[in-house]
Amino acid sequence: MTNKFRGVVPPVVTALTAEGEFDYASFANNINRMVDAGVDGLFVLGSSGEVVFSTDARRREIISAAVEIAAGRVPVLVGIIDTETARVIEHAKVAKELGADALVATAPFYALQGQAEIERHFRLIHEAVDLPLFAYDIPVCVHTKLDRNMLIRLGVDGVLAGVKDSSGDDVSFRFLCQDNERAGHPLTILTGHEVVVDGAYMSGADGCVPGLGNIDPAGYVRQWRAFQEGDWETVRKEQDRLSDLMRIVFVPQGIQGYGAGVGAFKGALKALGVFESNRMPEPVRTLNEEEIAGIAEVLKQAGLL
Amino acid sequence: MTNKFRGVVPPVVTALTAEGEFDYASFANNINRMVDAGVDGLFVLGSSGEVVFSTDARRREIISAAVEIAAGRVPVLVGIIDTETARVIEHAKVAKELGADALVATAPFYALQGQAEIERHFRLIHEAVDLPLFAYDIPVCVHTKLDRNMLIRLGVDGVLAGVKDSSGDDVSFRFLCQDNERAGHPLTILTGHEVVVDGAYMSGADGCVPGLGNIDPAGYVRQWRAFQEGDWETVRKEQDRLSDLMRIVFVPQGIQGYGAGVGAFKGALKALGVFESNRMPEPVRTLNEEEIAGIAEVLKQAGLL
Amino acid sequence: MTNKFRGVVPPVVTALTAEGEFDYASFANNINRMVDAGVDGLFVLGSSGEVVFSTDARRREIISAAVEIAAGRVPVLVGIIDTETARVIEHAKVAKELGADALVATAPFYALQGQAEIERHFRLIHEAVDLPLFAYDIPVCVHTKLDRNMLIRLGVDGVLAGVKDSSGDDVSFRFLCQDNERAGHPLTILTGHEVVVDGAYMSGADGCVPGLGNIDPAGYVRQWRAFQEGDWETVRKEQDRLSDLMRIVFVPQGIQGYGAGVGAFKGALKALGVFESNRMPEPVRTLNEEEIAGIAEVLKQAGLL
Amino acid sequence: MTNKFRGVVPPVVTALTAEGEFDYASFANNINRMVDAGVDGLFVLGSSGEVVFSTDARRREIISAAVEIAAGRVPVLVGIIDTETARVIEHAKVAKELGADALVATAPFYALQGQAEIERHFRLIHEAVDLPLFAYDIPVCVHTKLDRNMLIRLGVDGVLAGVKDSSGDDVSFRFLCQDNERAGHPLTILTGHEVVVDGAYMSGADGCVPGLGNIDPAGYVRQWRAFQEGDWETVRKEQDRLSDLMRIVFVPQGIQGYGAGVGAFKGALKALGVFESNRMPEPVRTLNEEEIAGIAEVLKQAGLL
Repeated sequence: MTNKFRGVVPPVVTALTAEGEFDYASFANNINRMVDAGVDGLFVLGSSGEVVFSTDARRREIISAAVEIAAGRVPVLVGIIDTETARVIEHAKVAKELGADALVATAPFYALQGQAEIERHFRLIHEAVDLPLFAYDIPVCVHTKLDRNMLIRLGVDGVLAGVKDSSGDDVSFRFLCQDNERAGHPLTILTGHEVVVDGAYMSGADGCVPGLGNIDPAGYVRQWRAFQEGDWETVRKEQDRLSDLMRIVFVPQGIQGYGAGVGAFKGALKALGVFESNRMPEPVRTLNEEEIAGIAEVLKQAGLL
Repeated sequence: MTNKFRGVVPPVVTALTAEGEFDYASFANNINRMVDAGVDGLFVLGSSGEVVFSTDARRREIISAAVEIAAGRVPVLVGIIDTETARVIEHAKVAKELGADALVATAPFYALQGQAEIERHFRLIHEAVDLPLFAYDIPVCVHTKLDRNMLIRLGVDGVLAGVKDSSGDDVSFRFLCQDNERAGHPLTILTGHEVVVDGAYMSGADGCVPGLGNIDPAGYVRQWRAFQEGDWETVRKEQDRLSDLMRIVFVPQGIQGYGAGVGAFKGALKALGVFESNRMPEPVRTLNEEEIAGIAEVLKQAGLL
Repeated sequence: MTNKFRGVVPPVVTALTAEGEFDYASFANNINRMVDAGVDGLFVLGSSGEVVFSTDARRREIISAAVEIAAGRVPVLVGIIDTETARVIEHAKVAKELGADALVATAPFYALQGQAEIERHFRLIHEAVDLPLFAYDIPVCVHTKLDRNMLIRLGVDGVLAGVKDSSGDDVSFRFLCQDNERAGHPLTILTGHEVVVDGAYMSGADGCVPGLGNIDPAGYVRQWRAFQEGDWETVRKEQDRLSDLMRIVFVPQGIQGYGAGVGAFKGALKALGVFESNRMPEPVRTLNEEEIAGIAEVLKQAGLL
Repeated sequence: MTNKFRGVVPPVVTALTAEGEFDYASFANNINRMVDAGVDGLFVLGSSGEVVFSTDARRREIISAAVEIAAGRVPVLVGIIDTETARVIEHAKVAKELGADALVATAPFYALQGQAEIERHFRLIHEAVDLPLFAYDIPVCVHTKLDRNMLIRLGVDGVLAGVKDSSGDDVSFRFLCQDNERAGHPLTILTGHEVVVDGAYMSGADGCVPGLGNIDPAGYVRQWRAFQEGDWETVRKEQDRLSDLMRIVFVPQGIQGYGAGVGAFKGALKALGVFESNRMPEPVRTLNEEEIAGIAEVLKQAGLL
């Protein structure tokens, strides 16, 4: 059932006009370019899809656009990220109404809680909205690591369809994949760490959610297919090339975290002609021309420009 | 100008019915009891006011009710807590429309950023909505500490009217109060740590935002007035008594953080007959009868029951 | 019994020659100046006493010198700080042999452990060496907070004579002081936070261990005596003055943590003529003349120069 | 030059008698078993080699024994782990005197510092003692991550011969390996994460330092050789088997961190007849018979018993 979400599922970067409005045309360019390259799905309103920067109205625009542009060619997973259960369920209902194929939710955040509340959170979302649900493990943002045993239990119980792992904990990821296998593989496990997808495949990942897949979708698709064929040398070589390309995030100076990472993705998409503007959402600084030139230089070295 | 927000400003605990709906009557009981006890203001939709658990519709209910019940007797500060700027500004506009006297915003959270983005965040909120704005320093929830120099700068520039400090950093708090004094006292500085308000007054705080003030507002009012009169022995004795009372939060077992802390406040308000129900918002467990009995025992020892 | 360790007990800064050797004369100047000012005890080989920078031989030099210079005028507490139990006990035996009046030990650090191991650690030290033992609560260095219930239990059992609290958690400190009182005051509780000693006295502290006491011992002695007499206004005014003086630690630029903090103390002691050199231990950079001049400026404003 | 440290270099678990003394015979059993299995080197006095639990005298015993037992068959790397530079250099001199082939040092810990001090720390150790020096990146213990650019710079400058990475950051590890390659491969980079060695090999690691290599050295040797031959399926299958075996660390209950991890290793070595006793150093609890039986069960399932 959950097999439809395997493979390369990039978290789609949101396009804004220079004035900060949603840029449908650029967004469509990016999605079409990725679908043409052979990606297996699209994840909108992820962390790098500026979900937490977007008002509810903006979130609706993004979901509707993605569903319309994807047009059934690949499934659309939608991030329903918000602080606590009641708010998250509201987003889930909207996403379903607008045509999402699956939902992606993090642990609750801001208020301090334990694993019991997290488990109840996922169960309540599942009860409220009948769509495949992915747990998004991203402690760097929500400051809680999802417990491995809980994830398996929720998979076995049919609450979770999968896990998107951005936990930065490759040891725990290995154990999660092994536990999932023993339990009959209830969960589709995707890694969010685009720099070490080869290692995740070694551990048994069912696919990846690479932010860098917005820039070089064909590379991740080639890597996935090589993995399916057991051609590990190609898996590794593609990864080395892609990891080199990831260095675009080191180009911006004097800015950290989101502004540097997603900023570099937007800068690259502008340099590639996919995005009209690399405008960032407030309060994040938009990268300047000099920084975009530096990013373009890395793209040239990688043969993408 | 900002003097109107000095003194005791409890963060108002939100009342729910046993079914999880907003309980206006209980909410009114609590506010009226606090206003009668002489508090100087009310802070609704703070962390303990379940802001992050409340949908936008629920937030509206709470603000409207608070403004209506307060009826101008004391100012109403409203928490506009959300992840990033655009979402926060939406809440700010609603709060103003519904009659808030001041706004309280945290640093952006979830996405990783630096102090430059935080400063821009506060400036944009101030530009968008013309109401006194308090910065809420609560690293345990947002995982960033507000920079002292930035706060003073925003105070001097008229962006911030004050700071609600729940940073847990009493050393930094002392320096903040001293810096504020030197800058001409642009900021009204309130401490959120109800167990050590006496120390905060020693450091020069302009008031407090004690969650425990929902349970014993008269105590915090007596303490504030003693501080105004330089009667430090009374300040200290009230604090020792209140800190003892705070041990209600140690009664719940097998539950942590929000569920134990706000859970104990709700349990106490039920035991006192102020709240009809001690129902907690999902996904947090509601304290049971045994736990409420344990809390009532502490209240009896403190002479409140 | 433990009353002998109440009051002002500065952590003694270690004096080095310009070549990095132990400077007995400067060290004696500093101790004599503090004893003359009326301090109640001396704590050598604390965090600011460069205990973790000192070889075992150097530690011996420092203890011997302190005991000799103090000459029974005030008790000498000795830090026996090291990673795990067996190493700590070796330091404890040396300290006793060289004449220490009490020992100060942190939780074990480097290897990851829980509270059970920490409790056993303190019990084993106490069994091994018959001297009053203080627990040093300093999570910023050892990355574990000492559990309050454990501390009280160890006090009641006669394992611990006291606690030196540098935990930065004033809420927990208040509860610790209250619990200690209820248990019959087995522990002498000293705060290490020199900027908020007034708040700690409000909470019931039995004294302080102020690094800044090396620079202005008379101020902390006046404050302590005012506290003993219930003169809270003087307690507060001295604190405001001392907190201002503490800003010497903000003078150094481009250096953080230990190098800025203890660096500023050494710079001030050189500016005051107490230390011959402000040399820091490797690998920490020694402050330069310009930085010492900046520190001297703060001292002048405070009337100490 | 540094090629001699490539391959499988297990961190040698220290054997104690039931009374807590060093157990030379058991220690020799373990080393001989690993050398016979074909490991490429031995790392004594690492984190799992109880370096921070060992007195200086005990450290000498361990180094001397390891050098004597290895008898030149494989190189012996020695951990010189202590808080700050002067203390670390003393250990370095002892290690050299006793015949170590290389040294392994962490960043300084306990006192708070920045990257400049860390870099100076490594340079001073290298100046003081002429042996190949490895930087040990273990933020979970020392609470600082070693900067990638600094490591490369120290490699190029001839200060560092290599890096033992236990940082838990596989993304940074990938970039480090790439940077090292570009710089002419000055550093020998070893991973300490025994559960994901296959991923580390994908990233370009020069070998591994697996604690679990004490239990199943032959598995890691087979995996290394398969990697050398480009046989990735074998690399992966061995890893899956070894990761299953690692679950011995989940057997102990009610004990965390070191006591569970190294405790399980010692329990397994006792079950295998390699160690006479599974005694742990104080203050860590020694696993009981029931726990050893649980570990033996896992060993049986893995075919090792």
